[in-house]
Amino acid sequence: MNKRILIVGGVAGGASAAARIRRLDEKAEIIMFEKGPHVSFSNCSLPYHLSGIVEDSDSLVLMNPETFKQRYKIEARVHSEVIQINRERKTITVKDLLSDKTYEEPYDKLILSPGATPIRPKAIQGIEKPHVFTVRNVLDIEHLNNYIKQKQVKDIAVIGGGFIGVEVAENLRLANYNVTLIEFANQIMTPFDYDMAQILHKEMADNGVHLIVNDGLAKIGEDFVETHSGKKFAAQAVVLAIGVRPETSLAEEAGLEIGETGAIKVDSNYVTSDPDIYAVGDAVEVYHRILHKPTRLALAGPAQKQARAAANHIYGIPNRNLGVIGSSSIHLFNLNAASTGINARTAEASGFHFDSVYVMPSDKVGLMPDSNVMHFKLVYEKPTGRILGAQAIGKGNVDKRIDVIAAMITMNGTLEDLRDLELTYSPMLGTARDVVHHAALVALNQLNGVYREVKVSQVRELVEKNAYIIDARERREYEAGHLKNAVNIPLSEFRNRLDEIPKDRPVYIHCRSGQRSYNMVMALQHLGYTNVYNISGSYLGICLYEYFNDLAGDREKIVTEYNFN
Amino acid sequence: MNKRILIVGGVAGGASAAARIRRLDEKAEIIMFEKGPHVSFSNCSLPYHLSGIVEDSDSLVLMNPETFKQRYKIEARVHSEVIQINRERKTITVKDLLSDKTYEEPYDKLILSPGATPIRPKAIQGIEKPHVFTVRNVLDIEHLNNYIKQKQVKDIAVIGGGFIGVEVAENLRLANYNVTLIEFANQIMTPFDYDMAQILHKEMADNGVHLIVNDGLAKIGEDFVETHSGKKFAAQAVVLAIGVRPETSLAEEAGLEIGETGAIKVDSNYVTSDPDIYAVGDAVEVYHRILHKPTRLALAGPAQKQARAAANHIYGIPNRNLGVIGSSSIHLFNLNAASTGINARTAEASGFHFDSVYVMPSDKVGLMPDSNVMHFKLVYEKPTGRILGAQAIGKGNVDKRIDVIAAMITMNGTLEDLRDLELTYSPMLGTARDVVHHAALVALNQLNGVYREVKVSQVRELVEKNAYIIDARERREYEAGHLKNAVNIPLSEFRNRLDEIPKDRPVYIHCRSGQRSYNMVMALQHLGYTNVYNISGSYLGICLYEYFNDLAGDREKIVTEYNFN
Repeated sequence: MNKRILIVGGVAGGASAAARIRRLDEKAEIIMFEKGPHVSFSNCSLPYHLSGIVEDSDSLVLMNPETFKQRYKIEARVHSEVIQINRERKTITVKDLLSDKTYEEPYDKLILSPGATPIRPKAIQGIEKPHVFTVRNVLDIEHLNNYIKQKQVKDIAVIGGGFIGVEVAENLRLANYNVTLIEFANQIMTPFDYDMAQILHKEMADNGVHLIVNDGLAKIGEDFVETHSGKKFAAQAVVLAIGVRPETSLAEEAGLEIGETGAIKVDSNYVTSDPDIYAVGDAVEVYHRILHKPTRLALAGPAQKQARAAANHIYGIPNRNLGVIGSSSIHLFNLNAASTGINARTAEASGFHFDSVYVMPSDKVGLMPDSNVMHFKLVYEKPTGRILGAQAIGKGNVDKRIDVIAAMITMNGTLEDLRDLELTYSPMLGTARDVVHHAALVALNQLNGVYREVKVSQVRELVEKNAYIIDARERREYEAGHLKNAVNIPLSEFRNRLDEIPKDRPVYIHCRSGQRSYNMVMALQHLGYTNVYNISGSYLGICLYEYFNDLAGDREKIVTEYNFN
Repeated sequence: MNKRILIVGGVAGGASAAARIRRLDEKAEIIMFEKGPHVSFSNCSLPYHLSGIVEDSDSLVLMNPETFKQRYKIEARVHSEVIQINRERKTITVKDLLSDKTYEEPYDKLILSPGATPIRPKAIQGIEKPHVFTVRNVLDIEHLNNYIKQKQVKDIAVIGGGFIGVEVAENLRLANYNVTLIEFANQIMTPFDYDMAQILHKEMADNGVHLIVNDGLAKIGEDFVETHSGKKFAAQAVVLAIGVRPETSLAEEAGLEIGETGAIKVDSNYVTSDPDIYAVGDAVEVYHRILHKPTRLALAGPAQKQARAAANHIYGIPNRNLGVIGSSSIHLFNLNAASTGINARTAEASGFHFDSVYVMPSDKVGLMPDSNVMHFKLVYEKPTGRILGAQAIGKGNVDKRIDVIAAMITMNGTLEDLRDLELTYSPMLGTARDVVHHAALVALNQLNGVYREVKVSQVRELVEKNAYIIDARERREYEAGHLKNAVNIPLSEFRNRLDEIPKDRPVYIHCRSGQRSYNMVMALQHLGYTNVYNISGSYLGICLYEYFNDLAGDREKIVTEYNFN
C-alpha cells in the first residue's frame, strides 16, 4: 500500500522532507500543510527585501503549490493550520483558514516542521501596538515594508542584536531609515566573543546605525521607545527580534516529549517519542557535538539535513548523526563575519580547559587589489590542541576560512592538523600562508609555551597601571597613533637600544598586527629577558577593541589616535 | 658557539628559512646569497605587473637587504652567486657578480633554496633571439614589460598553458596586447581534467586570447612564431612558459643525491644526503600523499612550510611530514579556478579504482546579487568513498570550497564526512546546502548505485548514435537552445506523458544543471524503468564542454544554441 505522509510546515524543513520523500517513493501520497499563504520561501533572505536587494517580495517564494504539484506530485495546502494531532487515530485535525472549516487527515507517518515563533514579551508596555512588527515570513516582511513606506516612517527601533535584528537593522539603514538597535546584553551577535563583537559594533556605528547595548526595551510609545535605563529614542515603527521560541504547542498537546531546552525531543533519526511522528528544524532540540548536551539551533542548513534524515529513516535508509557544532555567517555592511564551534565565552562557561589566539593577517597578497586585514580568533582545547571553534571578520571571504575550521572540528582536527593543511593559493585570492595557518602557528607557539601573551581586553588595565609597553612599529607609524604610555622601540632599532628595556619588570610588546612584536619577543627571550609578553591583537586589535566603548565619551581613551588599517 | 647558517637563494624558501632561524636563535649568524639583485620578492605576483594590477615593479620586492639586516639581523648578499659547495671543508664558494671576485664562506649548516629555471628547449629554432623572454624574477618581468612597451609590440605569443603561461597571457591581454597562447597538450592547466579545462578555454576565448591547443612551438621568427602543424602567428615578442627544471647543478656537482624526478632528494626533514645540508622549495622532490610516490611541486605554500621545517630540524624541533596533495588556484579574467588532490586523469593513469561527479549548483542564494553557477568536480575512490581530489571553477570563491576539500583529504575524509560537514551559510555568502555538500550527495548516490549517469564527454556520441535523450527543462528553456535530438519532456509534465518514454531502450535525461533530471530519473526508476541515466553536467555542462572545440568550426554542433547561464 502506498504510504501517506503528512508534513506540518512547508518552509525549509518541510519542503526538503517532501522533496526527498518523493525521490525515495514515487507512489507515496505527500501533503504539506502551511498556515500562511506560502510554502518554500527563502526565510534567510527576508531582511533583504527591506533594502531592495531583493526588490520583489514575490521572488522570496521559491516554489508555489502548483509547481510542487506538477514537478513533485506533492500537495501543498496553504492557509491550512494543523490544530491537533490525534495520535491514537493517526490523524491530524486541519483548519482551513479561508473557509474556517476543520477536517481530519489520516497519516502513516507525520513530520513536524513548524519552526519557531518570534518572542513578544507581554511585560513590555505597548507591545500590542500596530506599529510593532516581527519578521518570520514573507507576509511579515511585506507588512513591515509597506507600513514604513506608506506611513513615511523615518525612525525605526530594532530590538535584539541577533542575526535577524542585525540583518533587519542593516537593511533598513541601507534604505536610509534612522535605525536604533537596542540590545540587552553587552554585545550583539552572541556567536562572537566580546572582543570580536567590537568590530561589528564599530561597523554598525560607522554605517550610521545607532547601537545601544546593555539596555533593554521597557516601553513602546506612539513614536518612541524607552529603555530600562530610561533613554528614549524616536521610533515610528518597532521591529522585535529578541529571539524565537520553538513551536511546540502541537507536539506538547499531543503528549510528545519535550526536551530540556524546551524544544521537541527527537532521537538520532529525528523520531519523536511517537515512532510514527518525526520532527525537524527550529522546533527540535539537537545534540551539540562539542558541548555534549542538547541545544537549539535555528539554522537552515541543519534543518535541511534533518529533513533528509527523517525522510531516509521512513524508508529504512540509515543515517549518521554527528550532532551540531553551530556554523553561521552574516554579511554586515562592508564586512562579513562567520563563526563555528564554540567561542571562548562558551568554553569558559562550560568548564573547558582552553585558550584562544587572535590574529589579523592579510587575506590576500598585500600588493593585490582588495587585500584586507582579516580578524581571526581560534579557540582550542589545552593540552590536546583540539580545535573547539573559530570566529572571523573582514571584508573578504571570512566564511570560507571558517568552513575549513568547521571541517577540521568535524574531523577531530588539532592545531597541528590545521597548520599542516595544504590549501590553495594565488596572489589575487589569498596568501601562501593562509589566515588559518597563521592562527594555528600562533596557537601552537602559545600551547607549547614558546612565548606568552596578554589579550587585547587586558591592555586598558596595563596602560592604567603604567606597565612597560613597547610599540615595535616604525617611528612614523607610532606618530600616527599609539598607546598613551607605550615606548616606541622599532623592531629595526631594538638591538641597539637594549639598555632601554628593563629586565626587572614585565615587558609587553605590540606592533601593528603582531608579526614584528612576535620577532622581538623571541629575540628578547633568547637575550635573557624572562618576563616578556606579546600583546595579542596588537595595535589594530587594541583600536578596534576600544573604539565602540570610547564612542560614549565617558572614559579616557588609551590611544592617541585610532588606527584601523 | 654561535651557529653559522648559510642559505642559497633568497626568495620564498630561503627568506622564510632565514626568518624562522632568527626566531629560534638570536645569536646565529645567518647569511642569504642571491644571484640576482633582489631577495624576498613576490614570485607569484610577477605576471600582474604586465597588466598594471601591480603598477610599480619595485613593490614586488617585499623586503630589501637593509630591512633584513635591521629587523632580523640577517645578512642578504645580492648579486652573489654560489658556484660551489665544498662539503669536505663545509664551505661554499661565492662569486660576487659585481666585482667578479670569488671567495669561500664556511657553514655549520647550509640550506639550498635555489628554485627552478624556466626550460628553453634548444631544438626550437630562434630560441636565442632577444625578443624571447622567460618569467622568473623581478628583472625578467621588468625586462619583458619594458621591451614590449618600448618596441610598441602589438602581438605576443605565450608558449605553454601552465600557471605562468596562463597568468602572463591574461595580464598581457588585460593590457590590450594581441595574445596567442600555444599549448602542446590538448588542454591548458593540467591540474584540471579535460572537461573542466573547457570552461577555462572558453574564458580565454571570450576574453580575446587566441588559444591554440594540440600544437607545439617549432620556430621563432623576427615577428612571428610557427607551430609544429605549420601555423604562423604574428608575434613581436615571445614568452616561454613551457615549464621549469629544478636547479640541481650545485647539489649535483657536490655529489648530493638527486631523486627519481630529477630534483634534489631530501628526507622527511628536508635534509639532503649530506646531514649538514638542507634543501627546500622548487628544487626538491616531495612525497605525494595520495599517489604514494615522489613528485615535484613548484608552489609557494609548500616551499614556506619546508623552509620552516628545515629551520626547526636544525634546532632539534621535530617536524611532521604529511607529504603533499597539490592544492592550487588561479584567477583568470572573470573566473577563479582551483583544484586539490588528484584529478580523474591522474587517478586513471595511476590505476585507482575511482569515479567522479560534476555538479554546478549556485554559489549563493539565487535571489542575491552576484549569485553564480559554480562548476565543481569531485573525484573519489571506490568502494571506500575516500576523497581523492576536486576541481572548481566559477566567478565566486571556488578556491575556498577547494580548501574545504583539501582539509578533508588531509584528514582522510570520505564522502559521508563531506556530506555531514556543518558549514556556514547566509544568503549573501552561500547556500544552505553548499556546493561541496551537493557534490558529496550526488557522489554518494552514484557510489551506492542509487542511479547511473553518463559523463558530459559521452554526450556527443549519444547524439550521434541518436540515443533517446529527454530534456527535462520547461518548454521555453528548451526553445532557447537544446541538444539536437533531445525530446522535451519537462519534469512538470512527464507523469502525464509516460507513454512517450520508451522502456525498451536506454533513456538519458538532462535538464539545466541536473536537479530536475535527478528527480525524473528517480521517479522513472520507481515506475519500473530499468535503463535510465542522468547526464552528468546537464545542459550547462554540455554547452561548456562543446563550445571551445566547436569554435574551430570543423565539426557539427550538437546543440541548437549554447546556454551558459
